[in-house]
Amino acid sequence: MTDAVSIPAVAGSGPGVPKTARGERTRARILKAAEETFGSLGYHRAGIADITRAAGVASGTFYTYFVSKEQTLRELVQEMGRRLRAHLERETADAQDRLESEEMGLRAFLQYLRDNPALYRVLQEAQFVDESIYRSYYESFGERYIRMLAGASDRGEIRPGNDEVRVWALMGISNFLGLRYALWEKEMHFDEIVATVSDLLRNGLASAGAREKR
Amino acid sequence: MTDAVSIPAVAGSGPGVPKTARGERTRARILKAAEETFGSLGYHRAGIADITRAAGVASGTFYTYFVSKEQTLRELVQEMGRRLRAHLERETADAQDRLESEEMGLRAFLQYLRDNPALYRVLQEAQFVDESIYRSYYESFGERYIRMLAGASDRGEIRPGNDEVRVWALMGISNFLGLRYALWEKEMHFDEIVATVSDLLRNGLASAGAREKR
Repeated sequence: MTDAVSIPAVAGSGPGVPKTARGERTRARILKAAEETFGSLGYHRAGIADITRAAGVASGTFYTYFVSKEQTLRELVQEMGRRLRAHLERETADAQDRLESEEMGLRAFLQYLRDNPALYRVLQEAQFVDESIYRSYYESFGERYIRMLAGASDRGEIRPGNDEVRVWALMGISNFLGLRYALWEKEMHFDEIVATVSDLLRNGLASAGAREKR
Repeated sequence: MTDAVSIPAVAGSGPGVPKTARGERTRARILKAAEETFGSLGYHRAGIADITRAAGVASGTFYTYFVSKEQTLRELVQEMGRRLRAHLERETADAQDRLESEEMGLRAFLQYLRDNPALYRVLQEAQFVDESIYRSYYESFGERYIRMLAGASDRGEIRPGNDEVRVWALMGISNFLGLRYALWEKEMHFDEIVATVSDLLRNGLASAGAREKR
């Protein structure tokens, strides 16, 4: 997270801060092109020329907004995280409580990943460019998630517990189910996946007998 | 999984099948050196010369047992999976039931990952060399895991449910908790992590009120 301080686009000066609406659009177009290019060619094989070609801008234009390929990746991952979070917030807005929000959120995440497979690939590859990019993505996601669980626990929707550990467990569940059922094999209906996870989160796995034995 | 058929070491002829105990040891030493070399330099930067140097063997010796760097990675990932599974089997041998086995297994996995951080890095990087290596690792892990859950469900230790979805959720939990608490930040005691997951698996997250509301 501390790295963000050194990025001009975040600090608010130098390349990266469009001064006009047109500049904003160009910058967004380059970021979108970077997403497609990293997603299809992979980060290492993708060159800045591939990105500017996909964006339909002159190569000098790239450097008006970004300082390097690595900075582009860092900003792209942040942007992808913001976009996913906004999507999940919209899709879970009608949830009555935390557990319903988990169900709606998992379904929305699976669909989002199926529609945006580049998210997974770009994110996974980022850990080999600079692990802090990958780590920030999940930490930043996790911080908000912890606050949501704490609120749910205050409202009596979930039992009190170690919400940080729970959040990393929940992110692991979504991530692996996404990998398996949204990216690799698409035969399982999302309803079935969401129902299974919902049952785990509401009731655990233990049979009545095993729960009593404890 | 189908790719394995084309690997001489698996098919049982050509390079890769040591004919003597000494050959077995040399092959194992090369694989161990590959693990260290891929783990520290990364797969792409690591050359066969780095591996043979770390193993203390002549470069020709490498080709007695392996056909390429990629095949070495594939076999290494399989070997790492076998080693981890054997470790988990040993560490959970005394479990009284499936849920205790989950607790002992999670603890053993976290410790194993902390002691063998190369496992994570090599596995993650493998997905960019050939996704089937990465996928086979988890599918092969998952197949055994599904049978264990099905057995536990037959014995009445866990409620019946979609064990495949559950297994991918459980692998996601271990994976993310391992990443966060065994590799990145080491401040949280494994007892606390295991207790939190155990509570989730035994009782779910729902408060008594939220469970009734359903």
